Amino acid sequence: MQLTDAQKAEIEAARADSRTTLRPTVDAIEALLHCPIPVLDHGFVRVVDYMGDDAAVVQAARVSYGRGTRRAQDDAGLIRYLMRHWHSTPFEMAEIKLHVKLPIFVARQWIRHRTANVNEYSARYSVLDREFYIPAPEHLAAQSAANRQGRGEVLSGAAAAEVLRLLREDAQRTYDHYAWMLNEGEDGAPADPARRGLARELARMNLTLNLYTQWYWKADLHNFMHFLRLRADPHAQYEIRAYAEALLDVLKAWAPITHQAFLDYRLGAATLSAPMLACVRRMLSGETVTAETSGLSKREWRDMAEVLGLAP
Amino acid sequence: MQLTDAQKAEIEAARADSRTTLRPTVDAIEALLHCPIPVLDHGFVRVVDYMGDDAAVVQAARVSYGRGTRRAQDDAGLIRYLMRHWHSTPFEMAEIKLHVKLPIFVARQWIRHRTANVNEYSARYSVLDREFYIPAPEHLAAQSAANRQGRGEVLSGAAAAEVLRLLREDAQRTYDHYAWMLNEGEDGAPADPARRGLARELARMNLTLNLYTQWYWKADLHNFMHFLRLRADPHAQYEIRAYAEALLDVLKAWAPITHQAFLDYRLGAATLSAPMLACVRRMLSGETVTAETSGLSKREWRDMAEVLGLAP
Amino acid sequence: MQLTDAQKAEIEAARADSRTTLRPTVDAIEALLHCPIPVLDHGFVRVVDYMGDDAAVVQAARVSYGRGTRRAQDDAGLIRYLMRHWHSTPFEMAEIKLHVKLPIFVARQWIRHRTANVNEYSARYSVLDREFYIPAPEHLAAQSAANRQGRGEVLSGAAAAEVLRLLREDAQRTYDHYAWMLNEGEDGAPADPARRGLARELARMNLTLNLYTQWYWKADLHNFMHFLRLRADPHAQYEIRAYAEALLDVLKAWAPITHQAFLDYRLGAATLSAPMLACVRRMLSGETVTAETSGLSKREWRDMAEVLGLAP
Amino acid sequence: MQLTDAQKAEIEAARADSRTTLRPTVDAIEALLHCPIPVLDHGFVRVVDYMGDDAAVVQAARVSYGRGTRRAQDDAGLIRYLMRHWHSTPFEMAEIKLHVKLPIFVARQWIRHRTANVNEYSARYSVLDREFYIPAPEHLAAQSAANRQGRGEVLSGAAAAEVLRLLREDAQRTYDHYAWMLNEGEDGAPADPARRGLARELARMNLTLNLYTQWYWKADLHNFMHFLRLRADPHAQYEIRAYAEALLDVLKAWAPITHQAFLDYRLGAATLSAPMLACVRRMLSGETVTAETSGLSKREWRDMAEVLGLAP
Repeated sequence: MQLTDAQKAEIEAARADSRTTLRPTVDAIEALLHCPIPVLDHGFVRVVDYMGDDAAVVQAARVSYGRGTRRAQDDAGLIRYLMRHWHSTPFEMAEIKLHVKLPIFVARQWIRHRTANVNEYSARYSVLDREFYIPAPEHLAAQSAANRQGRGEVLSGAAAAEVLRLLREDAQRTYDHYAWMLNEGEDGAPADPARRGLARELARMNLTLNLYTQWYWKADLHNFMHFLRLRADPHAQYEIRAYAEALLDVLKAWAPITHQAFLDYRLGAATLSAPMLACVRRMLSGETVTAETSGLSKREWRDMAEVLGLAP
Repeated sequence: MQLTDAQKAEIEAARADSRTTLRPTVDAIEALLHCPIPVLDHGFVRVVDYMGDDAAVVQAARVSYGRGTRRAQDDAGLIRYLMRHWHSTPFEMAEIKLHVKLPIFVARQWIRHRTANVNEYSARYSVLDREFYIPAPEHLAAQSAANRQGRGEVLSGAAAAEVLRLLREDAQRTYDHYAWMLNEGEDGAPADPARRGLARELARMNLTLNLYTQWYWKADLHNFMHFLRLRADPHAQYEIRAYAEALLDVLKAWAPITHQAFLDYRLGAATLSAPMLACVRRMLSGETVTAETSGLSKREWRDMAEVLGLAP
Repeated sequence: MQLTDAQKAEIEAARADSRTTLRPTVDAIEALLHCPIPVLDHGFVRVVDYMGDDAAVVQAARVSYGRGTRRAQDDAGLIRYLMRHWHSTPFEMAEIKLHVKLPIFVARQWIRHRTANVNEYSARYSVLDREFYIPAPEHLAAQSAANRQGRGEVLSGAAAAEVLRLLREDAQRTYDHYAWMLNEGEDGAPADPARRGLARELARMNLTLNLYTQWYWKADLHNFMHFLRLRADPHAQYEIRAYAEALLDVLKAWAPITHQAFLDYRLGAATLSAPMLACVRRMLSGETVTAETSGLSKREWRDMAEVLGLAP
Repeated sequence: MQLTDAQKAEIEAARADSRTTLRPTVDAIEALLHCPIPVLDHGFVRVVDYMGDDAAVVQAARVSYGRGTRRAQDDAGLIRYLMRHWHSTPFEMAEIKLHVKLPIFVARQWIRHRTANVNEYSARYSVLDREFYIPAPEHLAAQSAANRQGRGEVLSGAAAAEVLRLLREDAQRTYDHYAWMLNEGEDGAPADPARRGLARELARMNLTLNLYTQWYWKADLHNFMHFLRLRADPHAQYEIRAYAEALLDVLKAWAPITHQAFLDYRLGAATLSAPMLACVRRMLSGETVTAETSGLSKREWRDMAEVLGLAP
């Protein structure tokens, strides 16, 4: 991740601009505010603004007039109760705003989370940076043989080198042609005065999906956690998971009680189907249940064995 | 509007709790923060929290790294441009959170704005206050003869007095019966130990629609303005319009440039249909156009005449 | 539930109007179409229209060109897989539209499901029917002592009779006053020509929350099931649960494979938290775990014991 | 646009599968159902299903029991009234489902319409087709000098030829490398058994943004028109406008009264700001108003002159 001097100066100015407020604040998130957290080779997430904290969840759940006078222990108990019983509306009362730099193919997954606000850098209006994602060698995975949308072993040797070469050269070449078609010079004048540049909205179609884009993204705490639940999951594609993991740390700094409840009741939890529950009851009553006698499909048995730590 | 001493103390505590932050702040909205603004006879709106300001709209539109170094004039121009061309996403990047006390029949209109977050005081869980809305005499309007969902002249004399008496007595009686059915004493014990109280979730059905409820309500600046556009409109029912008008002042304090653009391009603007535009063009070219020669329906002609200040 | 002759005639006309279509159809739901299914004392749900079926879910998941040529067994497997892994978007591709008559206090819970479309009968524009909900004696429950938002034992004897009397008389009296304030005769002329009627939008505030309203409500299959999951739950208030149970039958007629998957993976399933899972693993490995040694809070232990059928 | 024989057979089978239904049907849209309407060089839209029609809008607005017995003229009047006064909820009661094939850069604009349902063909799970968009020579526009996000004159001659060559060759080369990295043979076995194929979810990042993807997309009539209003607008990028124009014809076939109201009150209408309205009033009262005396900014004056057909 590299920032220009002008960008660094803007961030420093924001970090220097301290004000007083009658709103709730969170020290740990104030410490992160505005600073880019690196993700992948050129990406980042920056917390640009936030509204509310753990106490805001409690305050909304109680529709109270002030910040509350109950003991901290009561607040934690209420937050954990709300999480356990899927009461989502109090968590919608806190909000976070991020600036994210991310490859286009990751942006295409991310944007499917509809209950959020987005302003993306416009390639109709501006020229995109010459930055593209190239996987680190340890993430250059083969197609999984078992799972049609998963990864298998890591590629190595000549095959890996060839893949990296192709990814890099194709991204560079298509970007160079993009720049050539635009024909924009430093000062807004044509680079080559002898010809007209292609419209930006057209030229961008020549770029590859690993090019970086950026956007402002804002979501409430409930939908932020919904994003994390799906994208910090081991089945999520590594590249978006890398962002989700950085954001888990943001959540921990911002709303630590909610973060712990989220780990316990969402990320670390598992849903057992009605047939699985029937099966567990039989096991707990002492019966020996096998895949064959369980009444579950093979796939469900395997899922359950994994969750409950049974020998496969 | 009356607050208990405990509520006042909570609000004062929130007003006294000043902190430092690296987020954008707005002095005029900080001055309002937490204080109830009275609406109707017992209602209020309180700004409980906010995120962003006019500059946040600009920052998101530009996907910039900092708060921007452009001149204030450029920011105003951009905000007005975004508003004029219905670019809504930058306005979604600021957020406001309110605590509102309002009659149930107003709440039923308000809740139809779906792109917002709400936590309502629960009458399944708690006992509602004995406060209900009674219109001031000048708002006690007869049914409009011309408009099936509008108001006509103000009632007066014996008829008005009788309506007010019925509204007041029915609200009081149904509330008294609600309380009797609940049978809850001050200390949680039954008021009358000889009988069981009805479940709160059932007893509430005996209340009238003018009883006050309260909620936390949070919306982004775009949807906040959409609410204002529909509810500050002269065709909106007076009782919800009273809230919208209080919130227009909040908007002015919070984001004054956006507020002015909103007045110019939304509240004070008018949409002319294709047939109306054809008509205006003819008039501007010197032709005398009448209702009969306009090609518009009577209703459309009347709408246009009103907007353009033509003699009816 | 009572319909006027005109309403019955309209429904019969709709049932008689058979047409041909190239869209998917479902015989069992066609058999239900337009007919009111009674709920509570005066309410109903009517399926007014539907789009798609089980196969539409499969078709969207595969982004296929036609209705598919796979075996029915494959379709069921895919639907169950999608449900188990919370892939919600294919279920959004089917849609249902209902006409519902329901008490206002139920409507206020129902409307909190925001991802749906609603047109409610307007009491600004029209006069509401004189129909209100009075609980059947077996649903007249006392407040639960254990659960602040639950019901306890059923009331009986004089106390029950008194509650029913109050509910009935207050609803009748407030409605009668509503009608008096409106002062509308059969033919649109004032009932009493000597005085003006109050505006409908004002008079309605005198009605109690058990009065029936009605609306058209439309949702996609995913959000329809989300509604059912929350409202067919034993913790939901009985009155809205009565609607949810009628709608479970509608789901079964409309999309039977999805219905079965919904029972197995949603309604009959349970989510175990990370600490609960740790506990179950210890039990399955043979360890005797008690509430005290479980590491769970009392409340969580009780929840888990219930789910797993352990002795309390 | 080319379909495989299997795809054609699937579409023909759907067209041949006629059924009876008690739901409303629309002959003109039945005639279109399932058939691809070509857009751009390889894209299409296909109507896959629909729910409701013009009468469904009316029925929901009236919350009626049947299809209504009013005259057709009344229905048209009501639909036009609802459109003119921005009553959107009745239009949400009809729904349409499309299968669309479109370039990725168009899909990225389209997906910003959040109130819709989408299932996209998964490039994590499947291999994308070797089809990419190359603009027709008459759409190969230069960057506009006046408008940072617009198009200027059409390129021609050697410059145009070179742009087309680059677009074509880069798309082909990156696709060929994508296929090489995947290393998938016809039968699922590796094309080259000597090496492992890269995971599909990674290989796709090498594709360019003009590659075609496809999805199922479903929206209600209100949001469908909102899409059309923004994307059939002359300021929309040509490539998405081409889809919007095909969909305007679909709207006309599906709901002709709504379509005409949409043309009159949305597409062909214009919003005049408060300052513009003040200006028009002065002109209509006989005053000569110029850009200088108008009180409008230059840009606003130009906008108004265009809308009202004034000499610039």
